[in-house]
Amino acid sequence: MSIKPLGDRVVIKKLEAEEKTKSGIVLPGTAKEQPQMAEVVAVGPGGVVDGKEIVMELKVGDRVIFSKYAGTEVKFDGTEYTILRQSDILAIVE
Amino acid sequence: MSIKPLGDRVVIKKLEAEEKTKSGIVLPGTAKEQPQMAEVVAVGPGGVVDGKEIVMELKVGDRVIFSKYAGTEVKFDGTEYTILRQSDILAIVE
Amino acid sequence: MSIKPLGDRVVIKKLEAEEKTKSGIVLPGTAKEQPQMAEVVAVGPGGVVDGKEIVMELKVGDRVIFSKYAGTEVKFDGTEYTILRQSDILAIVE
Amino acid sequence: MSIKPLGDRVVIKKLEAEEKTKSGIVLPGTAKEQPQMAEVVAVGPGGVVDGKEIVMELKVGDRVIFSKYAGTEVKFDGTEYTILRQSDILAIVE
Amino acid sequence: MSIKPLGDRVVIKKLEAEEKTKSGIVLPGTAKEQPQMAEVVAVGPGGVVDGKEIVMELKVGDRVIFSKYAGTEVKFDGTEYTILRQSDILAIVE
Amino acid sequence: MSIKPLGDRVVIKKLEAEEKTKSGIVLPGTAKEQPQMAEVVAVGPGGVVDGKEIVMELKVGDRVIFSKYAGTEVKFDGTEYTILRQSDILAIVE
Amino acid sequence: MSIKPLGDRVVIKKLEAEEKTKSGIVLPGTAKEQPQMAEVVAVGPGGVVDGKEIVMELKVGDRVIFSKYAGTEVKFDGTEYTILRQSDILAIVE
Repeated sequence: MSIKPLGDRVVIKKLEAEEKTKSGIVLPGTAKEQPQMAEVVAVGPGGVVDGKEIVMELKVGDRVIFSKYAGTEVKFDGTEYTILRQSDILAIVE
Repeated sequence: MSIKPLGDRVVIKKLEAEEKTKSGIVLPGTAKEQPQMAEVVAVGPGGVVDGKEIVMELKVGDRVIFSKYAGTEVKFDGTEYTILRQSDILAIVE
Repeated sequence: MSIKPLGDRVVIKKLEAEEKTKSGIVLPGTAKEQPQMAEVVAVGPGGVVDGKEIVMELKVGDRVIFSKYAGTEVKFDGTEYTILRQSDILAIVE
Repeated sequence: MSIKPLGDRVVIKKLEAEEKTKSGIVLPGTAKEQPQMAEVVAVGPGGVVDGKEIVMELKVGDRVIFSKYAGTEVKFDGTEYTILRQSDILAIVE
Repeated sequence: MSIKPLGDRVVIKKLEAEEKTKSGIVLPGTAKEQPQMAEVVAVGPGGVVDGKEIVMELKVGDRVIFSKYAGTEVKFDGTEYTILRQSDILAIVE
Repeated sequence: MSIKPLGDRVVIKKLEAEEKTKSGIVLPGTAKEQPQMAEVVAVGPGGVVDGKEIVMELKVGDRVIFSKYAGTEVKFDGTEYTILRQSDILAIVE
Repeated sequence: MSIKPLGDRVVIKKLEAEEKTKSGIVLPGTAKEQPQMAEVVAVGPGGVVDGKEIVMELKVGDRVIFSKYAGTEVKFDGTEYTILRQSDILAIVE
């Protein structure tokens, strides 16, 4: 992976429907169209962001639920990623 | 429960109408459609959130009243949960 | 009373028109429909709320004037209460 | 007077047109309908309000000009008062 | 002058067109209707305003340019004044 | 120049099209109507502005690019100036 | 390059489609019309910006993904640049 997010940002890759079913999570309603579950593929360094000290709690490989509509989508080598702030990640699923 | 909320977030499960009646709470008007009472099923670690030190006052099992419209709904193993910030919890009912 | 408000929140019970008349307060205009006077029935612990140290100045039994539209209404054992922040309480009436 | 404002709030009583004329102040335009001059009848304790130390500069009896539309009106023993924050008071008239 | 502004507020008196011409300043367009130049007639004490230490840089007699639409207008002994915050004053003209 | 900006404000004079061409800068599109390049003609003292310590990085004579729509326009001795905050200046052109 | 951005701002030059393909990044949808990838051509000094200490993490030559719509466009010697804050840069691509 060669996208290095800045500050408190992370790069995530949305999980496909079948992957979510395996892990036991099903998102309500239009979930298939707006998946909210993803895997973390890159984590920014944290540090002082907007004047506040941010410690990164996430690590690569974490499966997370995130606020839909949050972040910016980019395509890299044919795969879609979302770049968003750690604070837009709601929870880690284990 | 395998959803670990981040920061000052908690995961709650809304209580059904009969459960609320047992505890003596009845919510006004369209309460059946928009239940505001729930049980806490997971509590984030708190710590520094958005530059502010947050101490978690809630614990798993607390019955709480929360701001309707607050939070994000997810379905897990067939059950619906809501992930929201501790500050969206109004009160503990005992 | 078994509703324990969190942080800087208080639980109040609106006073009926006759009770207000006894205490000499009459609210203008549509006051009967939107009573702004209430009695405090539960007080949160205060402490650090949203990163700021809040000392609770109110105590159970205080008669208060509050911002209408502020807070969330809940029904408990047949009685309606409002949960709101201490900062939405304008004054104590003695 | 038995209304004790909380925090940085003050209770004021609007001055009638004739009183304003005596003091030499005339407010422009629709002033008769929206008087902006008042007498302070109660002053809150100040202290830490919304995380900031507020020192009350006003005292009972001060004649003040205030932002119209600011504050909440209440009627007490037949007299109308306005409860508003000290920061909504623009100036003292002497 | 007997209007004592509170906090970081100042009282200014707008300059008439002829006075502005004397000082060499002409404001563009509809300047005659919306004069932005004024003389300071009273200065508040400054100090901690909204939790921030404010030092007053203006003094009575300063000729200033200010943000139009800023402030509140009052009439006193037949003269119109504007009460506004020091931060709404853009520059001193000398 | 006799306009002394307050706080973190600066006074700038927009550069004419021919002046911009000389310096090699051409602004896109409707640049002739909305020039974004200017010369600094006066710099405020900086200091504590809105509770924050501001150090002025600009000096008289700097050629700058600024946010269009920012600031207030005034005419002085037949010349138009713009008064705006240093933070509305994007870059110095050398 | 003779544009010196102020504070936490950087100057970037958008990458053309062919350049992006070389680096393996393809942006989704209307990417050709709204490229989000760019090369950093100038970096401000950082320091205290809006009261907060900002350390510049970017350096000239970095290839970055940035928030579209962020920043201000200027043309210099026939080339278009965008001036924006470091916080509008999402990630470095390596």
